[in-house]
Amino acid sequence: MNKEKLINIIKTKKNFLCVGIDPDMDKMPVGIERNVYGVKLFCEKIIHATLPYCMSYKFNLAFFECFGWEGIKIFQELVAMIPDTHFIIADAKRGDIGNTSKKYAEAYFNTFQCDAITINPYMGEDSVTPFLGFKDKWAIVLGLTSNKGSQDIELMPSGDSQVYLNTMTKCASWGKATEMMFVIGATQSEEMKKIRTLFPHYFFLVPGVGAQGGSLDEVCENLLTDEIGILINSSREILYASQEEDFQVHSAEKAREMAEKMALYF
Amino acid sequence: MNKEKLINIIKTKKNFLCVGIDPDMDKMPVGIERNVYGVKLFCEKIIHATLPYCMSYKFNLAFFECFGWEGIKIFQELVAMIPDTHFIIADAKRGDIGNTSKKYAEAYFNTFQCDAITINPYMGEDSVTPFLGFKDKWAIVLGLTSNKGSQDIELMPSGDSQVYLNTMTKCASWGKATEMMFVIGATQSEEMKKIRTLFPHYFFLVPGVGAQGGSLDEVCENLLTDEIGILINSSREILYASQEEDFQVHSAEKAREMAEKMALYF
Repeated sequence: MNKEKLINIIKTKKNFLCVGIDPDMDKMPVGIERNVYGVKLFCEKIIHATLPYCMSYKFNLAFFECFGWEGIKIFQELVAMIPDTHFIIADAKRGDIGNTSKKYAEAYFNTFQCDAITINPYMGEDSVTPFLGFKDKWAIVLGLTSNKGSQDIELMPSGDSQVYLNTMTKCASWGKATEMMFVIGATQSEEMKKIRTLFPHYFFLVPGVGAQGGSLDEVCENLLTDEIGILINSSREILYASQEEDFQVHSAEKAREMAEKMALYF
Repeated sequence: MNKEKLINIIKTKKNFLCVGIDPDMDKMPVGIERNVYGVKLFCEKIIHATLPYCMSYKFNLAFFECFGWEGIKIFQELVAMIPDTHFIIADAKRGDIGNTSKKYAEAYFNTFQCDAITINPYMGEDSVTPFLGFKDKWAIVLGLTSNKGSQDIELMPSGDSQVYLNTMTKCASWGKATEMMFVIGATQSEEMKKIRTLFPHYFFLVPGVGAQGGSLDEVCENLLTDEIGILINSSREILYASQEEDFQVHSAEKAREMAEKMALYF
């Protein structure tokens, strides 16, 4: 999906909600088996129920890899059931030396047919650039993450700046805003305005609203642009909205509530 | 495998060679089909032939993920065929927020039954510590990588030090030398002595000998300790030693040559 189509879908639907698919077997609701088949059924129901209220899905690969190859198989099957009106992100945080990043890019863009993959840029240019140059595909590079550990390395001083800002500046010199986005945690409200000023044209994937403590309004006020420029992810709040047998109704309701708040910004 | 057993195997065998399994379909020799079944057969033959000349295997996950779930299935089957005399590393460079790193740890230690997984520490403490505390399992954290891109972020100045050294120091405060190792690229000869002085008790996984330009002797001179403290990885030089039908004979020969050089250090 190219940038024009992405913006078009968001503006038409008045919605920049990404539903995070992090299916934790231990949190499955009543009526769902606690195994890989249960997880598949759970995800299918969540996706069917939330399709009208979001424009993107983000699959967290760890929650599929933990089942071994059978988990990857259901990940592939779930991706295949999502219509091309929705932007599909593999949240995989990959990155390695050049020949290896190239294989990861082929895996996620060609084999798994995702629109985007999250990238950890720590290993530098040759670990990031192999994810660029795929038509209509996106590298979503870690900018400033939502977790407490972001203080340990990302927020360390470096020169007269910080590690994460130097990293983002370098990444932006390697990839254009039509093929690269950044992950900016919703919990990083103090840094947000500065980041948007420095990177006006890049889309930001913003996790951390809800369970992690970030605020939807704060994110919109700080990061929204004329080109929209944000995808807001919510995982746990939507996925585990209810433990009852009709859980997907509650998940859809939660997504609808978020979508309504987003629509106010159009 | 705990540290005592690891050192014991190395000293008994006079060998600290790790064979890197990065099976690139485009490089398959004569007689091997260029598909997932061919790749499996290729890896089986390489493993059978090199078992006597190494004490560890490092599987590069990207080269399996690119085949989708069928690639992960053969990865699991290959891991299962390796005897417990050999230390099995998943070279996956994973790392994410706490609940997600926990799932990756479960995937690689429990489901895939590897001894160790490589970790990208960029997201900080809560992305690294979920890989610790598994009995006889290891988190191998990126220290200073072998690629050119290591200059971009890892080697950036930070305070009166560098990003990678600050990162290693923090990681070492989270994980003991009995459960954590570091990746130190063989090409980083200028930094090696300093790194060993600062981290005398940690094992280092050292890729980059051979195709990437690092020297076995230089690595041994700079990093070897009384407790050994190094695993030297070679991938392409061993894997693609020959394009002929009897390729595995040449791979074994290449591994034997490296093993002989290593034995001189005992």
